[in-house]
Amino acid sequence: MNIDAFAPVPDALEEFVAGVHRGSRQAYTEYRGDSDLRALVAERLATFTGRSVSSTNELIVTPGTQGALFLALAATVQAGDRVAIVRPDYFANRKVVEFLGGVVVPVSMDYLSRTDETGLDLGQLEEAFKSGARTFLFSNPNNPTGVVYGPEEIARIADLATQYGATVIVDQLYARLVYSGQLYTHMRASSIDASQVVTIMGPSKTESLSGYRLGVACGPAQIIDRMEKLQAIVSLRAPGYSQSVLRTWFAEPDGWLQERIAKHEALRDTLLQLFRAVPGVVVRTPQAGSYVFPRLPQLRIPLHSFVHAVRVQAGATVTVGTEFSPDATESVRLNFSQNHDRAVAAVTRMIQLIDRYAM
Amino acid sequence: MNIDAFAPVPDALEEFVAGVHRGSRQAYTEYRGDSDLRALVAERLATFTGRSVSSTNELIVTPGTQGALFLALAATVQAGDRVAIVRPDYFANRKVVEFLGGVVVPVSMDYLSRTDETGLDLGQLEEAFKSGARTFLFSNPNNPTGVVYGPEEIARIADLATQYGATVIVDQLYARLVYSGQLYTHMRASSIDASQVVTIMGPSKTESLSGYRLGVACGPAQIIDRMEKLQAIVSLRAPGYSQSVLRTWFAEPDGWLQERIAKHEALRDTLLQLFRAVPGVVVRTPQAGSYVFPRLPQLRIPLHSFVHAVRVQAGATVTVGTEFSPDATESVRLNFSQNHDRAVAAVTRMIQLIDRYAM
Repeated sequence: MNIDAFAPVPDALEEFVAGVHRGSRQAYTEYRGDSDLRALVAERLATFTGRSVSSTNELIVTPGTQGALFLALAATVQAGDRVAIVRPDYFANRKVVEFLGGVVVPVSMDYLSRTDETGLDLGQLEEAFKSGARTFLFSNPNNPTGVVYGPEEIARIADLATQYGATVIVDQLYARLVYSGQLYTHMRASSIDASQVVTIMGPSKTESLSGYRLGVACGPAQIIDRMEKLQAIVSLRAPGYSQSVLRTWFAEPDGWLQERIAKHEALRDTLLQLFRAVPGVVVRTPQAGSYVFPRLPQLRIPLHSFVHAVRVQAGATVTVGTEFSPDATESVRLNFSQNHDRAVAAVTRMIQLIDRYAM
Repeated sequence: MNIDAFAPVPDALEEFVAGVHRGSRQAYTEYRGDSDLRALVAERLATFTGRSVSSTNELIVTPGTQGALFLALAATVQAGDRVAIVRPDYFANRKVVEFLGGVVVPVSMDYLSRTDETGLDLGQLEEAFKSGARTFLFSNPNNPTGVVYGPEEIARIADLATQYGATVIVDQLYARLVYSGQLYTHMRASSIDASQVVTIMGPSKTESLSGYRLGVACGPAQIIDRMEKLQAIVSLRAPGYSQSVLRTWFAEPDGWLQERIAKHEALRDTLLQLFRAVPGVVVRTPQAGSYVFPRLPQLRIPLHSFVHAVRVQAGATVTVGTEFSPDATESVRLNFSQNHDRAVAAVTRMIQLIDRYAM
């Protein structure tokens, strides 16, 4: 999220300052976060996700969604454990598993040949569970493609997790930025047992609050307890004063979120038109979030060099596809959460570079 | 630090707000921290510690000193590695090593029979290195006792680390709160090679800025690089806006630090008098920091029950000694960084409880 183009939620700073004035109580919260704020957020997340959340047992506030992801994996994965991970998916998923000494079991997603569901290979997911994986981690909407898991996909993941006794960790960082007409199905509201699902969210992206480093995880008491013990040795707690800013979350002014979604959607549509006019470019329509993941035509230069050229000559930061999947050797991820005209200009220059370097 | 009794550094909040107004640049710093702020802090730490610090290669900003401790250990310790740890020392040291799958090799410190140095058993430290430990972690001033390592101790640690090629990680969280007449020797200014020492500090305690979650580590480029890569998967970065608050660090108004030290010192002296009037209590004079670690007479109730009674009946939070060393079965740590009269009243009630339960 470019916060200069998309301003933070109103009142965020005021809530922070109020937190500073509360003194010790706000600076030294419980490691899992201030109890009043957890009560507030638990209720809002229950409404949003469609399943109750106990603020005392089932919720932890973390330093950003990244902190929640690290702790959720560290609380469930031991060295040698097999962990099912989608290809493509957020690059840190793989890196955290590797840091913990876990073994990544890839599950592929054929997102380019679908328009409704994500195209997750459920057969491969079952094979992963059969091979011993007891944790499945995925982002929904998917990062980098912006595709959203369909209700049948979520139901099938729930069935498989139930059958094999696996824990599902779902990163829903962009779950509030869902485009018009698109259904969103919450994993934790599926038939899965509450003891088997951890949901990660945070106000860093859609709400432009990244500078405050806030994330949350909700899940079974046993995993949240372990996450809190780990948080005590990793960073103690999410920044105390920042936690106050959670008061603004899911409580934005009327129409605020809708306007933010509409602006992103208009930009998404313009960029898709631009990309689809380029011979050899194939791109799936993002259903949520602010990433687009076009597959480029074959280039005369290595993808890394192209990405460098885009940064220097088009002033746009894109990420090579292989960060998300070793197979995505011809794709790049672009974050289009920017000023509309500037984003269009950057993509126009990027397309000129595609034309220049296409074989 | 009780921040209601000891207020945060002046201008901390103003610097934070200025950071918010800088927008994206301050929200999305490099993972190792904003480069301008690193330049500032590197220079000040070089002056403070007596050895140069490269802001580009040798410094990382972390979410609190706890974050720096975790990352420094995670960057140097692999599963199965032996790590020398002092007894007693900060309880998280042991916990982080255990999380990483490391093996704790204890090095004892006979702090009660000394008045000058800490009484670290240097023979045991050498044995630890001989047994294969290649990392030595200690806090200076020591947490929980408040004792400060003498120049000969630091020199000898440097010699041993050099001889055995070990990395020394020194947690200097309280290194600015040193009492009158006390010398402080910086590990990194000793004869040790710069590639072998990581120094951890932060403004959470003496400066009462814990609510902003800020810490720093300085050390060799290779370890700092690895810490940054790990930070990218653990929490991305120290809170962006909070980083601005580092401008106030080592730049407090004239006399501010001296007054803070004097108030703590006066309280320390009063509390020592109170404790030393109790038959059976033995306590070493803290030379720095805000902890005191008295050994109590034998009690008729378990130490955990006594600590509970102190919390409920004296309104004081003390920590059982066994958190710091399995041998400290009769000691408790008290943080005396509070309002003077309230701290004296709490310790007076605590002493009544010692009298009541002493055998």
